[in-house]
Amino acid sequence: MQRIESHACFGGTQEVWQHESGTLGCTMKFGVYVPPHARERDCPVLYWLSGLTCTEQNFITKAGAQRHAAEHGLILVVPDTSPRGVGVPDAEGYDLGIGASFYLNATQAPWDSHFRMHDYIVHELPGLIETHFPTNDGCAISGHSMGGHGALVLALRNPGHYRSVSAFSPIVAPSQVPWGQKAFATYLGDDREAWREWDACALIANARERLPLLVDQGDADEFLTVQLQPERLQAACAAAGHPLTLRLQPGYDHSYYFIASFIGEHIAHHARALSA
Amino acid sequence: MQRIESHACFGGTQEVWQHESGTLGCTMKFGVYVPPHARERDCPVLYWLSGLTCTEQNFITKAGAQRHAAEHGLILVVPDTSPRGVGVPDAEGYDLGIGASFYLNATQAPWDSHFRMHDYIVHELPGLIETHFPTNDGCAISGHSMGGHGALVLALRNPGHYRSVSAFSPIVAPSQVPWGQKAFATYLGDDREAWREWDACALIANARERLPLLVDQGDADEFLTVQLQPERLQAACAAAGHPLTLRLQPGYDHSYYFIASFIGEHIAHHARALSA
Repeated sequence: MQRIESHACFGGTQEVWQHESGTLGCTMKFGVYVPPHARERDCPVLYWLSGLTCTEQNFITKAGAQRHAAEHGLILVVPDTSPRGVGVPDAEGYDLGIGASFYLNATQAPWDSHFRMHDYIVHELPGLIETHFPTNDGCAISGHSMGGHGALVLALRNPGHYRSVSAFSPIVAPSQVPWGQKAFATYLGDDREAWREWDACALIANARERLPLLVDQGDADEFLTVQLQPERLQAACAAAGHPLTLRLQPGYDHSYYFIASFIGEHIAHHARALSA
Repeated sequence: MQRIESHACFGGTQEVWQHESGTLGCTMKFGVYVPPHARERDCPVLYWLSGLTCTEQNFITKAGAQRHAAEHGLILVVPDTSPRGVGVPDAEGYDLGIGASFYLNATQAPWDSHFRMHDYIVHELPGLIETHFPTNDGCAISGHSMGGHGALVLALRNPGHYRSVSAFSPIVAPSQVPWGQKAFATYLGDDREAWREWDACALIANARERLPLLVDQGDADEFLTVQLQPERLQAACAAAGHPLTLRLQPGYDHSYYFIASFIGEHIAHHARALSA
């Protein structure tokens, strides 16, 4: 594992690391923000999953999250959005293949040999983080759009693993919307029963843990009505008695300007759960 | 003048506008952050000048300045770093031509017909801003690297125009360092007397207004010893009795991670001057 960037930032360091991932069969990069507190004590970790087309760079350069992580003493871990590089299959379009993993374990060829982002983020990456950084045993997860879907699904599939979860503009019901249907048909095949295991709205019905969900959604989001449909999450949570705080933020769109405006509140939310 | 981007951001709006510049003879873009206060009252303006290779996008996406502008009620105006587009001369290298105006008025052909960024930023752009946005009569200026040079030089050349000035990692003595010597020889010709009019350290000796300078400089900046040399600014200010707060920030480099870490303090500095 090799550090390829390091920048002083709000008293800590914003770093980028590169390593060979056994789970994904390729070289992966991830961003880590190490807050100043980490010089003196072990810190909890917030994993951030980015959206379609992103790499590990988008969130670390645009969200302004380091300021809040420095304030609360959280380590931020920001993986890439898919396997990438020589031998990794890709497809036409920004919404499939590289940059568009949907954070699942693919079952269909040729995707199944590399596209195992669930296992990478839940198992392989935390092992590396715990070995190389001063972490305590608390972790949380958040993300945006496809990464908001990823955060919700990883938390719902892995009860006990995350102390808190939040999302910005998540794809809450991928089985029901074009982005998700295209990806799931490709990565998981045509059996729609298999899709339910990677769909937050479907998982909520049988969730073993009632981890409260914090979701921010801009009401001027250009993907709101076709791809995001937060009312489906509201209905699923209401039916299952699952705690949800869904905030429709007036005037906000799908961009990092939206994330930057509210990331401080999300980090404070996670910091509360991680220090409890 | 046409608005080509608008995003809700920290309760205000981050916008990008495009217009035909008479001064520069080309189409120009600039970013404007309009804080929530602007719905109710006129606000002062902070102009930000970016560094080599940047456009109007770098600062507005990476610095996290909107949070602080929203807090203090400042309008942020972020021009592009040079004329750009069909007919605008360019040169080999990132440090000359497009993206590398050095914020001066060129006197040498073929640059003199377009490279008049001083006049654009001091005269043409403020006219547009005052016409289209709810401004009061206070303005300030800041910038990074080549733009830090620009901020210092524009403030020193135009006494009374700016209420406050600050810079991150500025090129304080362009006549003495490779970046500046290459640009000045090209844009201003070989007469080094003419260079003194665009060199902060030279201008300080004869400054008519003792506007205090706030400068932050990372001590791990990769350009520190060859291109930046803040000790020259310190010496020039000491010799002239010009007020300077120069802060060497330990461990910080030349990146936007440095700017993001301290932009809040700079905006607070300008807000104090603009409300006084």
